[in-house]
Amino acid sequence: MRSEFQFIEHIKSKYNLDKVGDDCAVLPMDGDTDLLVTADLLIEEIDFRLEWTTPEFLGHKALAVSLSDIAAMGGEPKWALLSIGVSENLWKTDFLDRFYAGWHELAGKYHVELIGGDISRSSDKAVIDSIVGGEVPKEKAIRRSGAKPGDAIFVTGYLGGAAAGLKLLDAGTRFDASLAAGIRHVLVRYLQPVPQVDTAKLLQQLSLATSLIDISDGFSSDLMHILHGSYLGARIHRAQIPVDPAISATREFAPDALELALHGGEDFELLLTVDPERASEALDLGFHQIGEITQNTGVIEFIDGEELTILEPQGFQHFR
Amino acid sequence: MRSEFQFIEHIKSKYNLDKVGDDCAVLPMDGDTDLLVTADLLIEEIDFRLEWTTPEFLGHKALAVSLSDIAAMGGEPKWALLSIGVSENLWKTDFLDRFYAGWHELAGKYHVELIGGDISRSSDKAVIDSIVGGEVPKEKAIRRSGAKPGDAIFVTGYLGGAAAGLKLLDAGTRFDASLAAGIRHVLVRYLQPVPQVDTAKLLQQLSLATSLIDISDGFSSDLMHILHGSYLGARIHRAQIPVDPAISATREFAPDALELALHGGEDFELLLTVDPERASEALDLGFHQIGEITQNTGVIEFIDGEELTILEPQGFQHFR
Repeated sequence: MRSEFQFIEHIKSKYNLDKVGDDCAVLPMDGDTDLLVTADLLIEEIDFRLEWTTPEFLGHKALAVSLSDIAAMGGEPKWALLSIGVSENLWKTDFLDRFYAGWHELAGKYHVELIGGDISRSSDKAVIDSIVGGEVPKEKAIRRSGAKPGDAIFVTGYLGGAAAGLKLLDAGTRFDASLAAGIRHVLVRYLQPVPQVDTAKLLQQLSLATSLIDISDGFSSDLMHILHGSYLGARIHRAQIPVDPAISATREFAPDALELALHGGEDFELLLTVDPERASEALDLGFHQIGEITQNTGVIEFIDGEELTILEPQGFQHFR
Repeated sequence: MRSEFQFIEHIKSKYNLDKVGDDCAVLPMDGDTDLLVTADLLIEEIDFRLEWTTPEFLGHKALAVSLSDIAAMGGEPKWALLSIGVSENLWKTDFLDRFYAGWHELAGKYHVELIGGDISRSSDKAVIDSIVGGEVPKEKAIRRSGAKPGDAIFVTGYLGGAAAGLKLLDAGTRFDASLAAGIRHVLVRYLQPVPQVDTAKLLQQLSLATSLIDISDGFSSDLMHILHGSYLGARIHRAQIPVDPAISATREFAPDALELALHGGEDFELLLTVDPERASEALDLGFHQIGEITQNTGVIEFIDGEELTILEPQGFQHFR
């Protein structure tokens, strides 16, 4: 079966759609500014479960995933639309009021204004489409395609925490203020992720990233998006992967920590490449250097001590 | 139970959202142009049924409803995003290829470019969020709030056809090229509506409309949106309602023709108000004059010969 990535490539080439395929579409806005637009569809039972989260967390996350797409182009978010479908039963509860409260709390931090959207009834499951518009200085959107051979590869924070949180939820843990700090941490990483809006602004000001993406599907597959975009390869060092230390608190999933960091999605950290001469600037910002770009197109070499293996991307796909 | 319109008013006032509530949001773009953005959510079993339509018709309609929102502000559509959720069973068919074919056929007519979106799996029902961006000359978006007492009220075409098509579908008729012309006409009005993009362009060039909306929920409720936006009332003349003559071909629904024209939705004609001194220009364009704006705030007077009754809006609502 074709994956959604293959289908998107097919539609792109059939209809000659050159703006599709990065984290956001980029459009000319005025003489100084380009407009960024992104949409993220969240479907109940597929992308979220109402019994795993709260309406406030869900409102936060619906916006956060789209803010992360704007950040992943080095842009600044400005406005948003929300399309929401809920069943009549859910409509009668305080779900939407609490959802909008969570949404607006995050929106307020970044001065993002809700300007429209749509509300529909659904027959059963809830559905949310989060649309965000942002701005970036003219021709300064940071794309997946800009990596150069020899560039250093960085991530902005710890990886695998959100995936560990998802594992805990799937195994029956529910968020509660009385849980141990490490457990709460990984649950919050999944349920209420922090988009890297401020970091993106800094990257834009410094012109530091040659390519950029957010880690939504999973580190290995998001790195592969950069490699495909840039027609290049990568070498990654096991010892340098910033595995989220809070995963150790989960006990049962602690042995999977490296796998979760490599392939688990939804940490919403940024993955970037940097000219090696400027690597020290990225280190000074607290980013984690995990490898370098190679000319071995489409291949991720994985170095573990003396051993070299090939890392196959295993991130999230809806259809496989 | 509160309606979606009441909920939107509540959220608007709670969070002070002054861009929400017209057919599109209006944002400054550059010195000469404002940006319009709209989103329309279509949910299977609620907004469409796969057994009633074809994937091509559905692709067309998903775009048409949003183009109609851009037209309803006097704007010109430019770009679009599509967020689509489908079940794995539907994914395996040619549904999406045919959906995009129908979508692109309409998009090509108006040079609308698909620039992004999202694809997700759904557990069961399909869902489509259609997002369209457009442009309008600076501060020239035509709003619901611009009607003046004494303005003439016009609609751009026949009413009730789409609602008759929906009735036929609900009663078991399926679209087929061998059906009688009148039956095909009303089915196509519902399944493959024509957005009034060219008419909107003309209205913009002529500065003819003082207020504007598209007829999506139904004539009576869309007129009420203008009356609420403008804090005014209306007087409508039964003899002047342009009831779609093709409804007579449906036989069983022919007696309901006036009701369908007054309250049935989805004709996607435009409803506009015009300074009475310019009414002849609107008549010359082939528009139908059906009444006039009054100072009787929030009230639609309905004149049938000697009789005056009050017309209560009965258009589509998701929640009532």
